[in-house]
Amino acid sequence: MADLNVLTGPQVAEHANRDSCWIIVHGKVYDVTEFLDEHPGGARIILKYAGKDATEAYEPIHPPDAITTNLPVSKHLGAIDAGTIVKAVKEVTEEEKQRQVALAARPPVENILNLHDFEVIARAVIPSKAWAYYSSASDDEITIRENRMAFQRVWFRPRILRDVSSVDWSTTILGCKSSLPLYISATALGKLGHPEGELTLTRAAANHGVIQMIATLASCSFDDIMDNAASGQEFFLQLYVNRDREITRKYVQHAEKRGVKGLFITVDAPQLGRREKDMRMKQVDDSASAEVQKGQEVKKDQGVARAISSFIDPSLSWKDIPWFQSITKMPIILKGISTAEDAIFAYEAGVQGIVLSNHGGRQLDTARSGIEVLVEVITALRAKGYHPDPKFEIFVDGGVRRASDVLKAIALGAKAVGVGRAFLYSFCAYGQEGVERAIQIFRDEFEMNMRLLGAKTIDDLVPEMVDASALNQHIVTVPRDNLFESTCELLMFLVLII
Amino acid sequence: MADLNVLTGPQVAEHANRDSCWIIVHGKVYDVTEFLDEHPGGARIILKYAGKDATEAYEPIHPPDAITTNLPVSKHLGAIDAGTIVKAVKEVTEEEKQRQVALAARPPVENILNLHDFEVIARAVIPSKAWAYYSSASDDEITIRENRMAFQRVWFRPRILRDVSSVDWSTTILGCKSSLPLYISATALGKLGHPEGELTLTRAAANHGVIQMIATLASCSFDDIMDNAASGQEFFLQLYVNRDREITRKYVQHAEKRGVKGLFITVDAPQLGRREKDMRMKQVDDSASAEVQKGQEVKKDQGVARAISSFIDPSLSWKDIPWFQSITKMPIILKGISTAEDAIFAYEAGVQGIVLSNHGGRQLDTARSGIEVLVEVITALRAKGYHPDPKFEIFVDGGVRRASDVLKAIALGAKAVGVGRAFLYSFCAYGQEGVERAIQIFRDEFEMNMRLLGAKTIDDLVPEMVDASALNQHIVTVPRDNLFESTCELLMFLVLII
Amino acid sequence: MADLNVLTGPQVAEHANRDSCWIIVHGKVYDVTEFLDEHPGGARIILKYAGKDATEAYEPIHPPDAITTNLPVSKHLGAIDAGTIVKAVKEVTEEEKQRQVALAARPPVENILNLHDFEVIARAVIPSKAWAYYSSASDDEITIRENRMAFQRVWFRPRILRDVSSVDWSTTILGCKSSLPLYISATALGKLGHPEGELTLTRAAANHGVIQMIATLASCSFDDIMDNAASGQEFFLQLYVNRDREITRKYVQHAEKRGVKGLFITVDAPQLGRREKDMRMKQVDDSASAEVQKGQEVKKDQGVARAISSFIDPSLSWKDIPWFQSITKMPIILKGISTAEDAIFAYEAGVQGIVLSNHGGRQLDTARSGIEVLVEVITALRAKGYHPDPKFEIFVDGGVRRASDVLKAIALGAKAVGVGRAFLYSFCAYGQEGVERAIQIFRDEFEMNMRLLGAKTIDDLVPEMVDASALNQHIVTVPRDNLFESTCELLMFLVLII
Amino acid sequence: MADLNVLTGPQVAEHANRDSCWIIVHGKVYDVTEFLDEHPGGARIILKYAGKDATEAYEPIHPPDAITTNLPVSKHLGAIDAGTIVKAVKEVTEEEKQRQVALAARPPVENILNLHDFEVIARAVIPSKAWAYYSSASDDEITIRENRMAFQRVWFRPRILRDVSSVDWSTTILGCKSSLPLYISATALGKLGHPEGELTLTRAAANHGVIQMIATLASCSFDDIMDNAASGQEFFLQLYVNRDREITRKYVQHAEKRGVKGLFITVDAPQLGRREKDMRMKQVDDSASAEVQKGQEVKKDQGVARAISSFIDPSLSWKDIPWFQSITKMPIILKGISTAEDAIFAYEAGVQGIVLSNHGGRQLDTARSGIEVLVEVITALRAKGYHPDPKFEIFVDGGVRRASDVLKAIALGAKAVGVGRAFLYSFCAYGQEGVERAIQIFRDEFEMNMRLLGAKTIDDLVPEMVDASALNQHIVTVPRDNLFESTCELLMFLVLII
Repeated sequence: MADLNVLTGPQVAEHANRDSCWIIVHGKVYDVTEFLDEHPGGARIILKYAGKDATEAYEPIHPPDAITTNLPVSKHLGAIDAGTIVKAVKEVTEEEKQRQVALAARPPVENILNLHDFEVIARAVIPSKAWAYYSSASDDEITIRENRMAFQRVWFRPRILRDVSSVDWSTTILGCKSSLPLYISATALGKLGHPEGELTLTRAAANHGVIQMIATLASCSFDDIMDNAASGQEFFLQLYVNRDREITRKYVQHAEKRGVKGLFITVDAPQLGRREKDMRMKQVDDSASAEVQKGQEVKKDQGVARAISSFIDPSLSWKDIPWFQSITKMPIILKGISTAEDAIFAYEAGVQGIVLSNHGGRQLDTARSGIEVLVEVITALRAKGYHPDPKFEIFVDGGVRRASDVLKAIALGAKAVGVGRAFLYSFCAYGQEGVERAIQIFRDEFEMNMRLLGAKTIDDLVPEMVDASALNQHIVTVPRDNLFESTCELLMFLVLII
Repeated sequence: MADLNVLTGPQVAEHANRDSCWIIVHGKVYDVTEFLDEHPGGARIILKYAGKDATEAYEPIHPPDAITTNLPVSKHLGAIDAGTIVKAVKEVTEEEKQRQVALAARPPVENILNLHDFEVIARAVIPSKAWAYYSSASDDEITIRENRMAFQRVWFRPRILRDVSSVDWSTTILGCKSSLPLYISATALGKLGHPEGELTLTRAAANHGVIQMIATLASCSFDDIMDNAASGQEFFLQLYVNRDREITRKYVQHAEKRGVKGLFITVDAPQLGRREKDMRMKQVDDSASAEVQKGQEVKKDQGVARAISSFIDPSLSWKDIPWFQSITKMPIILKGISTAEDAIFAYEAGVQGIVLSNHGGRQLDTARSGIEVLVEVITALRAKGYHPDPKFEIFVDGGVRRASDVLKAIALGAKAVGVGRAFLYSFCAYGQEGVERAIQIFRDEFEMNMRLLGAKTIDDLVPEMVDASALNQHIVTVPRDNLFESTCELLMFLVLII
Repeated sequence: MADLNVLTGPQVAEHANRDSCWIIVHGKVYDVTEFLDEHPGGARIILKYAGKDATEAYEPIHPPDAITTNLPVSKHLGAIDAGTIVKAVKEVTEEEKQRQVALAARPPVENILNLHDFEVIARAVIPSKAWAYYSSASDDEITIRENRMAFQRVWFRPRILRDVSSVDWSTTILGCKSSLPLYISATALGKLGHPEGELTLTRAAANHGVIQMIATLASCSFDDIMDNAASGQEFFLQLYVNRDREITRKYVQHAEKRGVKGLFITVDAPQLGRREKDMRMKQVDDSASAEVQKGQEVKKDQGVARAISSFIDPSLSWKDIPWFQSITKMPIILKGISTAEDAIFAYEAGVQGIVLSNHGGRQLDTARSGIEVLVEVITALRAKGYHPDPKFEIFVDGGVRRASDVLKAIALGAKAVGVGRAFLYSFCAYGQEGVERAIQIFRDEFEMNMRLLGAKTIDDLVPEMVDASALNQHIVTVPRDNLFESTCELLMFLVLII
Repeated sequence: MADLNVLTGPQVAEHANRDSCWIIVHGKVYDVTEFLDEHPGGARIILKYAGKDATEAYEPIHPPDAITTNLPVSKHLGAIDAGTIVKAVKEVTEEEKQRQVALAARPPVENILNLHDFEVIARAVIPSKAWAYYSSASDDEITIRENRMAFQRVWFRPRILRDVSSVDWSTTILGCKSSLPLYISATALGKLGHPEGELTLTRAAANHGVIQMIATLASCSFDDIMDNAASGQEFFLQLYVNRDREITRKYVQHAEKRGVKGLFITVDAPQLGRREKDMRMKQVDDSASAEVQKGQEVKKDQGVARAISSFIDPSLSWKDIPWFQSITKMPIILKGISTAEDAIFAYEAGVQGIVLSNHGGRQLDTARSGIEVLVEVITALRAKGYHPDPKFEIFVDGGVRRASDVLKAIALGAKAVGVGRAFLYSFCAYGQEGVERAIQIFRDEFEMNMRLLGAKTIDDLVPEMVDASALNQHIVTVPRDNLFESTCELLMFLVLII
């Protein structure tokens, strides 16, 4: 078989163009000539590594088995003789140098006081491409901001003189014990921001009894994560449904076999959103390697997000739900519900829960926040007699940065909330240690806030503890408009320039 | 006849003052002495070119036939012997130099990701006079900003798990097929911003199946545009009604004969608004040529807008509608409706549609946005049994920059929306190529947003897909007020200056 | 008599201290020793001019007859021999030099396009003390900003297709013809900002058929203004009621005799507000002359406003109304009503009108704007059958800068509006010419806005032409708060300082 | 006894580590070796002074008797021979030098015009650690800002033509006369900001007939304050309830014996909030003394607030109220009520009053403001027939900076308001003189505002005098979000960098 072959660097280097394109990944040589036009990220990016070792570029964006899964075995040419590769002397960019300085200058992790702090550090220490991918949201980025602001339009009605000498914020989520009323929500491509990627989450979650949701697009492979799990550690699985349902079936059943306790099917992403910050970063990248594209018709301005998501099936519909119920016994949760109508459909379809979510503001801009939708959903389900129902759990995600955000969601009827970017930034900034610090901060905040609310346990969090009457006041803080001022100030200018 | 005459530069140069004023336009010589005081833009601007070739100044502001139409044949003095004109060595201004640098520095058009981007480029590459004319709005420019903000106060209620593998956003507008649920709305004086003016729109529209509305004040003549049309390409006509109805009758009937498919009569501009940014630019211009005005009483601070619009008839009223219906079979649409009352009048007057519009914020400041008026109008028409009615189409314009804006309007009852400035800026920035890129961006956004909304076709866009409850929350972001801070900070100043 | 005496500069100079203090004003010598402690502005400011000519300081703040009225005849010591005064070589301050530069650099008055422009110019060319007095408002200056913002929360519902070839915005106010639906409201101390003071208003008003309201605290005397009036020119009188009613009686009856057509009694100022910007300016002034105050107990931090207003009677009450009705046949208008309750009281007290006003934001901070109160008042009067009533006119003032503001007030039920600061700034910037330009701008704006509204005359302005539903949304734009950001950014700082 | 011992500096200096740690405080030597781990502020801060004189660090944070109370008598080692201590030559830090410059540069206290001014001065002249402790609030500091903004959402409806020649704003609070309708609320650790600490309040209060509430955590001891009281001066006591009720009992009964007239039990602080600004300051401090912590496991990032509050009992509950009623005859007021429900509980528990308060924004973030809660509470109590009731007084605190704030609270039903930070900043800036100036400013503002409101006495302040309809419009001014702008401006950057 090809696996027995051992090839040399110079041999590979001969296949460095569109007509014959070989690349090296993880010590193996592949012939990707015919795959070039099928590559979701475009041919150009592969051609950049034609005849060379592409591992470093490949790794943070693909699960380890992506190439072996997508390429027919006949194209697996064999192993590379490591000694024969001419080590490219990689020039350290100015950005990279600054990044290293920032990394060295990070304050000790104990100095991090809140979840915002991680974002500040992450921005300084991760590559700008990673920042663009993680922080971007769709269109005018109104929904991502609304996610944060919506929580701040819910106000507390704290109760006093209750004995809160001990308070307990642990709960169960889909029957699994959780030390916090939240779970680590799925985020993709963790290795872009930290070499250990999502494993940092896995290890920290194990130490603190928190449940991790594994992303379909994680840069660590599913099995890698499971292999690193502690005994008894619980996981959920986030699923992008593949156009090829067989791939999905295998993936889901494999997950169930390895003990995953809940299947979160993403239903708000028939196509991944246009995230312009991410797309611009791609452009900068493109223009830096302009010589490659001469004379080639290439698809550009896609951004990382769209490049990696072409397999997602836009035809997914309610009709598919019974099929999922037929292939797994895991609880099925629909992630990305935005209306009461769909919440009712979900309940009636017999799934075990829903996540009220706008995908972190990354899909449909000016979609409402999960916390706002929660009020509508609970009201509608209650009217139908569907709520409360211990068999149907309601989650919320988007914009959570404080334990107080979580407590508001629970008071309004959520079982727990998902926290994505905040944990992502925590490991980008400090690796596993950062995630543990983030959990510890949540714990401190839960303790304080439950005491100050007069809530001894999660069950004490009732709707009367919040005033959510301003939640649907959609006053958007629009970006500064200089039009009016330039009208008025031109005259002032005439006076001042004398 | 005069046309047979051939005059020389020195002959013309002798007539360079108020008492005898000849000018050259497009190679012909005209005696404009008696016309000086009738010129809508004032005598002064003509006197600047007395005895000289005025073509360059004339062209972007006037349709080619303006001078021949307005001047009696006896004043058409003949052709100029081109070789005899002393080519004025035109000094390149500092602004012009910067403009050329900016033009050369434009990023490739593929790097444009959204409609805002065109505005950024246009601002950098067009003459400041064009920017002032295009971007200005009336008074405090509150309505122009409200137009944008109003869309951002409408939030989506997207539906999930519908098969959106193929989505279709094409529609028909007044019976014409349109590849997008929008049309290119009329904007004036395109050549101020790009030498090819409105023809860039015509050519791009042809390539993409989009309908162009031709403006009365286009700087390319109506026939020029029609002559450049592709076979089967559809047009609408925007009409400013002339005090001399005969001129209007001819114009309308000529348009109908040439195949125009809809007559959009502007009803919100009995007088053009005071656009101060435009007026200030005129002042700067004036003071640069101050020597001309010595001893002359001249009308100043008019701005381009008012200079070109004196022919518009402020007496236009409902009584005129039957006359329009008598002179054309084209569908008649009233452009500039702002209340439910007038929408009902329009319906009962038997016209074929209305545009809810505040003229891009350029007329009455603090008029409400079209999208807000839409809700009021639909409610009122429905109560009368006038809606829905396929014979009466409702359009909205003002502030549209995203496909999501369009989808909101359609969900709330509009047939399509008009997009003016966004296309204008696209050709100012990149000519025809810019317009095509703008259309492509719209297409990308329509595809994504319809999928994310769960709408397979335009018909799936229903009122329940939006939450417009905040639409009438008229919170204006007023310009920063320094009064309070100067009160508080004076003391701080005393401390700090030590 | 003392008037026959002629004194010399050296003679006066001997009386330059607390024990014997003479001053020269307008060529006359006065012994103010006993008056020192009664001076509303405090003794210190007089002592600064002890033994010297105080005319320049006296003039902008006092009506010409203030000193002769307040000082017993025995203290009128005689005339000064002008040749014997040592002309103080007055040092030109840095501020004054800059002011002169700014004055010379003013753009031509035709370049002024709106009322805001005058404010910009005025700020640059008047002494900072005048700016502080004119522009200041009480406490946190919330109400002064609200006055402007409230108009921007009222939106137009313009009507179309009405024949607006001629529009007429003239009206009558208290039976007097007015070319505009507004009057020049009373503002004090005009000479602080322009040497001709309020006479600039008088002359401009005469030329344009506008009614001027004369202020009790005008720096030109009442008779001076009347003597400069054109034949047939109309005036109103603003009245601060004196503790000594006899003074008030004489003042009112004198005004009536000279033909004043309306008496506007200020009812919102039992005490003048704390205007901190004005008070701070006083402090700066004080510290500049610190040597004077050594060893003296002086009242400080009063500001101009409070210094000049100590005569106002805080006991004024509804019981006084019949007395006013007994001393004059002029229409009586109560200026400074802020509630429906008091509007009803006023109607029932038999006065001829009210001004809904918060005194330009200079009295009670967080009082509501006149335009907001208007809606409440009209509703309440209507419910009582008191509105409409041609014998009871309702005015509004505060924050008016645009004809559109005026039209909104009239649509909502006001007869006319008062414009104070905007005219004040116009003469500060350009004298009489500025006021005329301001009136011309208003005229241009009225013409345009009435056409765009579809209103041919003032009577066409009906409530349905505005949407005032957001008027009582009291969202204050509070000054920027740096607290939160300093919390978040401290950490960032730690990173960046490396 | 140990008290007889006299020890020398060198003797003490030998005990300078974890194994044997002696310190000097107020001339006495203590062995704190065993206390190290019990110290609420952590061992590290003590070890910094091991073997040395700790008085200067001890004093502003502890009441004088803290050490003697907490340490068994056996650890009181004796007196120090003052002459034998090597006076540490304390290096004057850069911050301290700047502070001294700012102190010298303060404007005269008469130049202070409002309460905000004190904050400006205080910030400049107190140590940054004090500023962090005083100004910090919990989490995102939303509630502290809301406290100020909420008052600005209440608007006045002033009445006119009432005889306000004399107005009287004095009142009684819990039966005690008060010259102002407010009291000085408890704030902790006054000596951090001024060497005389809370005594400045005591002396100023005496001079002006204002009631001072003494804080449990005052840096002057309770008796010190009482000993400095004027004859007849009234006090209230703020109480943090100790886990050891006996300590609380003694403290309360001692206070009653010394004449305190009201017991304000803090019920909103079972645990002190996370105030991140304070915590960051602690970190800076820590890293400056990093050498101390080598090899030691120390609790960090606590901040001053949490360090001093570990004795507070989180188990305090309604069940404890009868016990308080059994140990004192003082009126009992519950400080920190935030809901109508708890107000009703309080009334029914038979206490004499409540303070609607969120602890100055320092406890639960996004708790509502006291003034907002007031409307809910008054409505609920009235519905139960519990209001008005002269035996049950309702107070409000948080964000008060103007007399107008106070008047709004009283109009809405409060008996008086508490003012904390504003007085704190006044003594930080100018000592006792500052507090007196603050009181004088309040008096000036009360006089003016009551006149302008048309209220002769406190009883004239009725609900109709305010429009509180916007009070529950929870529009938070969130911090500036740069996300959107960076999306849009990246392209602009590309153009501009050429």
